[in-house]
Amino acid sequence: MVSKVRYAKRAGTLKPDEIREMIKITSNPKVINFAGGLPAPELFPVAEMARATGIALTESGAVGLQYHATDGYLPLREKISERLARLSGVNADPADIMITNGSQQGIDLSGRLFVDEGDIVLTESPTYSGVFNALKVYLPEFVGVPTDDDGVVPEAFEEILKRYGERIKLMYVIPDYQNPSGRVWSVPRRAAFLELAARYELPVVEDSPYRELCFEGEPRPTLFSMDKSGMVVHLGSFSKILAPGYRVSYVLAERSILDKYIYASQGAFLQASTENQVAIDKYLELCDFDAHIEKIRTVYKRRCELMISLMEKEFPESVTFTRPKGGMFALVTLPEGKNARDLLKTALAEDVAFVVGDAFYAAEGVVNTFRVCYANMPEERIEEGMRRLGKAIRAFAAK
Amino acid sequence: MVSKVRYAKRAGTLKPDEIREMIKITSNPKVINFAGGLPAPELFPVAEMARATGIALTESGAVGLQYHATDGYLPLREKISERLARLSGVNADPADIMITNGSQQGIDLSGRLFVDEGDIVLTESPTYSGVFNALKVYLPEFVGVPTDDDGVVPEAFEEILKRYGERIKLMYVIPDYQNPSGRVWSVPRRAAFLELAARYELPVVEDSPYRELCFEGEPRPTLFSMDKSGMVVHLGSFSKILAPGYRVSYVLAERSILDKYIYASQGAFLQASTENQVAIDKYLELCDFDAHIEKIRTVYKRRCELMISLMEKEFPESVTFTRPKGGMFALVTLPEGKNARDLLKTALAEDVAFVVGDAFYAAEGVVNTFRVCYANMPEERIEEGMRRLGKAIRAFAAK
Repeated sequence: MVSKVRYAKRAGTLKPDEIREMIKITSNPKVINFAGGLPAPELFPVAEMARATGIALTESGAVGLQYHATDGYLPLREKISERLARLSGVNADPADIMITNGSQQGIDLSGRLFVDEGDIVLTESPTYSGVFNALKVYLPEFVGVPTDDDGVVPEAFEEILKRYGERIKLMYVIPDYQNPSGRVWSVPRRAAFLELAARYELPVVEDSPYRELCFEGEPRPTLFSMDKSGMVVHLGSFSKILAPGYRVSYVLAERSILDKYIYASQGAFLQASTENQVAIDKYLELCDFDAHIEKIRTVYKRRCELMISLMEKEFPESVTFTRPKGGMFALVTLPEGKNARDLLKTALAEDVAFVVGDAFYAAEGVVNTFRVCYANMPEERIEEGMRRLGKAIRAFAAK
Repeated sequence: MVSKVRYAKRAGTLKPDEIREMIKITSNPKVINFAGGLPAPELFPVAEMARATGIALTESGAVGLQYHATDGYLPLREKISERLARLSGVNADPADIMITNGSQQGIDLSGRLFVDEGDIVLTESPTYSGVFNALKVYLPEFVGVPTDDDGVVPEAFEEILKRYGERIKLMYVIPDYQNPSGRVWSVPRRAAFLELAARYELPVVEDSPYRELCFEGEPRPTLFSMDKSGMVVHLGSFSKILAPGYRVSYVLAERSILDKYIYASQGAFLQASTENQVAIDKYLELCDFDAHIEKIRTVYKRRCELMISLMEKEFPESVTFTRPKGGMFALVTLPEGKNARDLLKTALAEDVAFVVGDAFYAAEGVVNTFRVCYANMPEERIEEGMRRLGKAIRAFAAK
């Protein structure tokens, strides 16, 4: 037994990530689990990835098994650069791109580069809970910036920028089909946001894993492509549109900033998997990735519309929820004064689960929201799950 | 252009990793490069890994492409546990093991858990330069502990423990066939070291990537297996004995400490590649891993013996060097007052390269050593390279 371990101060912030722990709790197949955030496994192109991986390994020989430079496999970065130009209007050289072991690693690196103890990190309110989990080890203070259905509210953002001034060192945002709300920022809001961020010289991390999972028309332009300050760092990923088990995401940033990400990565983890990189590169070469994404988009859209229609039918009027235009999640809001953590107990008794929303807020003390994921569930289970959840909410409301 | 970026204080420590940068400089095929630390690519079991990977993906279906719990793929952790019991006398449950994206990530996590600004981190003198690169972002003071051919010198270690007391928060060691010296600690030295570490309640990170690359007899028992304090964290890896391009390494630690590594990993990178994990698991199931390691061992031993015999022949007597008993590296020491960085210029003019040793020392100011890697070079190139290096050293000595 360990007698006495003297950990670093930041280790005191560490506890199990609630969502990942929830995955364990809800592994009981009886539970209809809206809590997870996993992509639909039945849509994974398993055979195509197996084929592409095999060909990549055979063709690249020892390359796929060997160490690689930290910035990443050049043919893959070239293909990412081409995709960004074609689909996102982003003019990025492969040298502006570094491959990471998932975008969570990109968030951690951002904290490492920008956040000292006591600094302020801004997030949307609500935001992805994993950003707190990644950055809290750098011991900042988190401040949530009010949002509505169109994105960050500029007046509220400006007030916060004025109030905290140079203490603010970083802002983390998900403008496209956000986790947990499914919301997308309007173009005017993007412009207003960037104008303010540039005026206050604020580095912005634009996390963009859901951008291509849009349910109508074309995605909005990225903050990175609209920005003129050079202070927007864009995180892209294959996790939600191809396969998260291959850990291939990327950081796109102005060259001098990207260099810092590269140096930080050399110390932190050397490099993302070479094998995963050559495999995804070969998949992009051999397979119809656009058609694959279109397939995901179609299925997720149908599931989303079904879930929304069921929530409209099953939930009392006092319960509101977002109408996602893409992505994987919707956010439900209970009446003021209700605690979603209490509702979860009732829901689990009905064998249905969701993620309590309190983890999505910096320090606003919001306890009456929860997140539901429609992405990875067959329609009949969404129907049965929402029936159960409606029953739980009505029973809970009557308490 | 970026006008003004306010980075975190720790970002000021970041600069390109010299060894990884050196790889770029020496990519000219004319240069005989003893600088790299890459495993021999011609020994990679490319066909077997391609086959195992293909079978793993086909059999595991969506599992290999999906997110996975942070601790790692259980069948793989079970196989690691069996291997540790069989080869290292380590009695470890799979639940004592967490998979990381390479051992560099394990070193970073150790800093995250144990090191506050101003704390002291001990290393062997010399040590793997990547440990400084990983841990310097936690802003410690590094102190090198004197070593000789048998390992850490206990008297010197105790003196340092007494001098700095509770300021010392962590010690990082590579007891087996160390990078950069190829030295292995004797068993009595291991016992003496552990006795002192336990008395001072010092967490020890035992980095062990080279352990199975031993050239004679059996490897010595690990610190982890000899330790009774529960404070030794063991880092194991497939990088040097199978394929570093698959980023699969592991942390083995007492359960309460391992939990902290898991929580820290959830924030830092979520998980290592699922696909890489199922692939290596399948390789271990289908292929003769022991025979593969024996092959590497045989080739590296022959290359090492050749290099040592050539250094004995080509180098002046005033130049000394270690006699590796395993691993990939030897350390050369020039006479006092000489600087290996100056020698490198002469060597590069002869189209031969090595890694200057100053990066292997905490703060001892040693400038007269350099590292040579014999692992990844055919014998005729070792011969030609050592001839050139001998010529450079003699020319340099005559200056």
